[in-house]
Amino acid sequence: MTEKRTALLVVMDGAGDRPIPELGGKTAFQAADTPNFDRLAQTGMNGLMDVIAPGQTPGSDTAHLALFGYDPIDSYPGRGPLEALGAGLDSRPGDVAFRSNFATVDSNLTVIDRRAGRDISPEEGRELQEALDGLQIEDVTVRFVHTVEHRGALVLSGPSLSAEISDVDPHETGKPVLEARPLVPGAEKTARIVNKLVRLSHERLKDLEVNRRRVERGLPPANIILLRGPGKHREVPTLQQRYGIRAAVLAGGALYIGTARYVGMDHIHVEGQTGTIDTNFGNIASKAIETIRQGYNYVFVHIKATDNASHDHNPEQKVLAIERTDAMVGRILDEVADDIVVAVTADHTTPVSVGDHTCDPVPIVLWSDFIRPDSVTAFSEIDAAQGALGHIRGMDVTPLLLGYAGWVPKFGS
Amino acid sequence: MTEKRTALLVVMDGAGDRPIPELGGKTAFQAADTPNFDRLAQTGMNGLMDVIAPGQTPGSDTAHLALFGYDPIDSYPGRGPLEALGAGLDSRPGDVAFRSNFATVDSNLTVIDRRAGRDISPEEGRELQEALDGLQIEDVTVRFVHTVEHRGALVLSGPSLSAEISDVDPHETGKPVLEARPLVPGAEKTARIVNKLVRLSHERLKDLEVNRRRVERGLPPANIILLRGPGKHREVPTLQQRYGIRAAVLAGGALYIGTARYVGMDHIHVEGQTGTIDTNFGNIASKAIETIRQGYNYVFVHIKATDNASHDHNPEQKVLAIERTDAMVGRILDEVADDIVVAVTADHTTPVSVGDHTCDPVPIVLWSDFIRPDSVTAFSEIDAAQGALGHIRGMDVTPLLLGYAGWVPKFGS
Repeated sequence: MTEKRTALLVVMDGAGDRPIPELGGKTAFQAADTPNFDRLAQTGMNGLMDVIAPGQTPGSDTAHLALFGYDPIDSYPGRGPLEALGAGLDSRPGDVAFRSNFATVDSNLTVIDRRAGRDISPEEGRELQEALDGLQIEDVTVRFVHTVEHRGALVLSGPSLSAEISDVDPHETGKPVLEARPLVPGAEKTARIVNKLVRLSHERLKDLEVNRRRVERGLPPANIILLRGPGKHREVPTLQQRYGIRAAVLAGGALYIGTARYVGMDHIHVEGQTGTIDTNFGNIASKAIETIRQGYNYVFVHIKATDNASHDHNPEQKVLAIERTDAMVGRILDEVADDIVVAVTADHTTPVSVGDHTCDPVPIVLWSDFIRPDSVTAFSEIDAAQGALGHIRGMDVTPLLLGYAGWVPKFGS
Repeated sequence: MTEKRTALLVVMDGAGDRPIPELGGKTAFQAADTPNFDRLAQTGMNGLMDVIAPGQTPGSDTAHLALFGYDPIDSYPGRGPLEALGAGLDSRPGDVAFRSNFATVDSNLTVIDRRAGRDISPEEGRELQEALDGLQIEDVTVRFVHTVEHRGALVLSGPSLSAEISDVDPHETGKPVLEARPLVPGAEKTARIVNKLVRLSHERLKDLEVNRRRVERGLPPANIILLRGPGKHREVPTLQQRYGIRAAVLAGGALYIGTARYVGMDHIHVEGQTGTIDTNFGNIASKAIETIRQGYNYVFVHIKATDNASHDHNPEQKVLAIERTDAMVGRILDEVADDIVVAVTADHTTPVSVGDHTCDPVPIVLWSDFIRPDSVTAFSEIDAAQGALGHIRGMDVTPLLLGYAGWVPKFGS
C-alpha cells in the first residue's frame, strides 16, 4: 500500500526569466544563491513547464487554475469572481462578480480621478463599504467589500445574471462614466442593474461624512464605484470532490487566495504575509509546517515578490525574493521533509527586461525522499531542460504531486 | 515505399523501480547485467513513459490497453471480460464477465473459506466447471471456465445485462454471502440473475462427487462461486481493423492474454510460459522468432516475473528476471533483428520498496537497424531521461512501433 503524504506546491509568481545582462547573462534563478532548491534539483526530478500551452502567455489566475489541475479554457470564470473570493466574498455559481475601484466624478458623472487619489484608508473604506454592501436593486442583492487603497470587490446575486456586459469605466479622466451595454442577448438585465448601481453608488457616497472630510483635507472624494472584470462564478468540482483531500492556501494576494478558494482550498491566514518583498517568510514557513502537521493533504504557498520585482525591472530584488523563498523552503524541509512531496515552480515567466508576462516555459522540480533523481544539479530554467520530468504542462502538476503523494487511486487492476 | 517489418513489443511487468538500497541505490534495471538491452539503448532511441498520464498509477490491464494504442478511459471494460478472454471464454459486446472464486460456505451460505483451500486441481476444476458451464437462468446463458487453483472466469450472455452491480463476496470469512444489488437503474435484472446463479451454484456443487472426496480428505469443499470484477464487454476496433495487421500475444497470465485478445491479437501458446520466474524464456524466444517468421506483423511478449518479484519485495529476483528477459531478447535479435522494429519497456513501476504499482514513469527503448540513435548508452529509468524519444505516453507506443515498421500510411500527400 502506498503511504500517503502531504503535497506541497510552492509557486514564485513570475519568477521565470530570460538571460539578464545585469546578472552577467544569467537568469534570476541562475544568479540566486539557492542551496535548498539546488538540493531538491539534485535529488529530485526536474523539468520545464508550459503552464497553459506552448507559446501561450498565462495570466496569474489562469496559470494557477492550471497548476491546480483545472483546464483554464473550461473553468476560468474571469477575474471578478476570483478577486471576490480572495476578498472574502463568497460568490456562488450564478453570481456575477466584479473588481471595483472607488473613483471621483463631478456632478455630471465625468471622471476626475479613476482611483479617488488611491489613498483610501481601511477606516474610510469601511464607511464607504457600509454605504454599498447589502443594496437591493430589483431582485438582485449587492455585496461589496473594500480591500486595499481604492480597490474592492462586488458580487451581484440574483436570477438570470450575465457577465457579458460592457465596461462602465471610461479608462480616461475627463470622460463621462459609460453606460454598461449587453454584449449578448440575455445580458440586458445585468447591464441595467449595473447602470442603476453605479448611479446609486454616487447618490449614496457623495454626501458621506468620510468624503466631506476628504474634501476638507484637499483629497478627491470617493464618490462613485467603477466596475470591471465581470465574471460569472461557474461550478467546478473541488479538489476535495476530485481527490478526497483537504487543501489549504497560504498567500498574500487576493487573486491567489481567491483562485485557490475557487477550487476548494481553505485560506490559512499568515501574520505578515503580503504580496511584497517584505512578506514575513519566517511566518509563512512556520504556518506551512503547522498546516502540513494539522493534516492538510495539499498545501499551496504563493510568493508574489518575484513578480513585483520583474514588473519593476529590478533583477537584484528578484534574486533577493528567490533567495528568501529558498530559505523559507529550507526551513519547511528541515521540519517535514519526510511527510511531503513538494513541487517548486513559477506560474509564468516575467522577464525583468520586459516587465510583463511572457510565454517562456518555467522550471519545476518535483521532490520527495523516494523520488528517482535525474542528472540535474541546480534549479534554473536552463538546468531543468535536462531533467527526467521532461516538458510538462501546468495541468500535470497537481496530478503528479497527488500521484506521488498517494492520493490518486490506481486506474484498473 | 517503406519496407514493412514486424513490430515486437516486449513488456516486463512492473519492472520500473526507484533507487533500491539493497542494490546500492540503483534501480533493478541499473543493477541488472543487460548487454542486449544496453546494445538496443546505445543504437536506438530511448525515452521515459507515463503509461497512462503523469501522476496516474496504472493497473496492468489499463496499462496494456494504453500500450496497444487504446485510450483506457474509453476502452477499459473492467477486469472481468479481460480475464474471461484470457481464460479462453469468448465474451462478446454486451456480455458481462466476472472473475470467479470457488469458496466454501456452510448451509446458511456463511463463508468459511473464500478460496476453498486454494488447492483445486485441474481434474477437480473440470468436474466443478461441468456443473456450472451452460446453465440457463431466465434468458441468460452462463459460461464458466476453471483456470488455476480456486480461480475461474464466468460470462453471462443475454439481453439487457449490466456490470453495475454490487459484490456478492463479503471479503471476510464468517460473513454470509452478500446479495448483489443494482448500482444504477437498469441493473436490477443482472443483480437478480447473479443472486440466482450464486445460490444455484451452491445447489449444483455441494453434493458433487468431487466435493465428497475433498471432505473425506479433510479439505474444504468448493461448494459455491463468488463473483467479482464485473465488466461489460465493449466493442473496440481491433488492431487488424485499425492497421490491417495480424497481431499475436505470447503471455503466461490470463489477464495479459485476455487484454491482447480484446484488441484482436491471437494467443500463441508457448510450452512452459508461466507468470513466474520459472517461465521458459528459451521457449518464448523460439516461439517469438517463429511467430515473426510466420508473418505476424505485431508480436507482444509479456514477462510477469519482474512484477511478482516487486510485489514480494525481492530485488535480487527482480534483477534475475530482467537478466533472463535480456538474454531472451538477445536470442530473438540474433535471429530476426533485420526483420523487426522492437520496443522494450515496462507497463508500470512497482518499486520493491513499495510492493505495489506507483505512478513513476518507465524507461522505453525503440530500436531497429535503421532507427536514429541518441546519446543514451544503457537501458534504465535514469539513462532513458536523456533519450531522443523524450517523454511519451503509453498510447504512443503502438503508433511508434507500427509507424517505424511501415504500417501507418502517410496522412496527406
